[in-house]
Amino acid sequence: MLHLASETDEGWADYALANLDEILIDHAHCEKKAASTALNLLFRYPDRVELMVPLSELAREELEHFEQVLTRLDEREVTFVRQHPSAYAGRLYKAVRKDEPLRLLDTLLVCSLIEARSCERMKLLQEALDEGVLKDWYRSLLACEARHHMSYVNLAENYFARELVAERLQELAQVEADVLATAERVPRLHA
Amino acid sequence: MLHLASETDEGWADYALANLDEILIDHAHCEKKAASTALNLLFRYPDRVELMVPLSELAREELEHFEQVLTRLDEREVTFVRQHPSAYAGRLYKAVRKDEPLRLLDTLLVCSLIEARSCERMKLLQEALDEGVLKDWYRSLLACEARHHMSYVNLAENYFARELVAERLQELAQVEADVLATAERVPRLHA
Repeated sequence: MLHLASETDEGWADYALANLDEILIDHAHCEKKAASTALNLLFRYPDRVELMVPLSELAREELEHFEQVLTRLDEREVTFVRQHPSAYAGRLYKAVRKDEPLRLLDTLLVCSLIEARSCERMKLLQEALDEGVLKDWYRSLLACEARHHMSYVNLAENYFARELVAERLQELAQVEADVLATAERVPRLHA
Repeated sequence: MLHLASETDEGWADYALANLDEILIDHAHCEKKAASTALNLLFRYPDRVELMVPLSELAREELEHFEQVLTRLDEREVTFVRQHPSAYAGRLYKAVRKDEPLRLLDTLLVCSLIEARSCERMKLLQEALDEGVLKDWYRSLLACEARHHMSYVNLAENYFARELVAERLQELAQVEADVLATAERVPRLHA
């Protein structure tokens, strides 16, 4: 359903729980980056009118989640700090083709896969958490996160044939799975 | 009250009305840029924790306004397109000092002045418009816009003495007034 070509291994949730504060800081950075990515697309493609409102709404939702993670950090008395991102996104974006309109297609699908992986991992984390504020909050978040990966696929289908989108999504999902399979394990949502 | 060192000349509103569609397209770009500026500050200063939530909220509000201007353009059957920005922001940012923490101070105050000028001009436009959807919408917008310039000043006062902020704001307001006084008149909110 998430279009991912691999499932996260069973040990990940325990590892995340053992490094929960660092995972939460990473989560905040991820929401901020997701907002920034959506906003950058508004600047790169102002003439693609079908992208404007959906990406703006998406950016607003990511920023709202960013603020919510900061509240969760505050509750835990954890300070939000700079963090080295994992190599994941950089490696994944290398698969984006350089020429338009394929660059647009690939970018939207890479965004979709990043959202899908976030969603998969957040669900594992949510299930592993003890009852409490954090678990409840992740539950509420998952309803939104599950929409985001499909939003990007739907945006791509404005401009490209459904079959082409599905085919390329499958290829990029394999790249994403390979990137994760060979990633260093660090306490990040995407590693 | 807006901390501006000059008043827009009386002819501006008529000029804006005569080029209303272009002004509205510029307005949409301005909201998008304002969101992007706030978001970029979140990336540049992740350790300035007092900036995080206010700038994230500000970015969300600017994006909401961006979507609203797009609706106004739709109602007028005007297509949102790329547009050459006026030279205003680029010239104004040149006054920002390069070394921290002065760069932070100047950036926040330049943002404040850009917001203040938007607010002044939107008010002139609102007053000049005929009764209707657009006039009503600008009225509702002004309540928010009037807050934004003070938000940036207040953020600066988290990190710098009130007197220092006031003094530098006055200097930069003079730069802003000079930039506008020598600007080419083009149909933009800041020109």
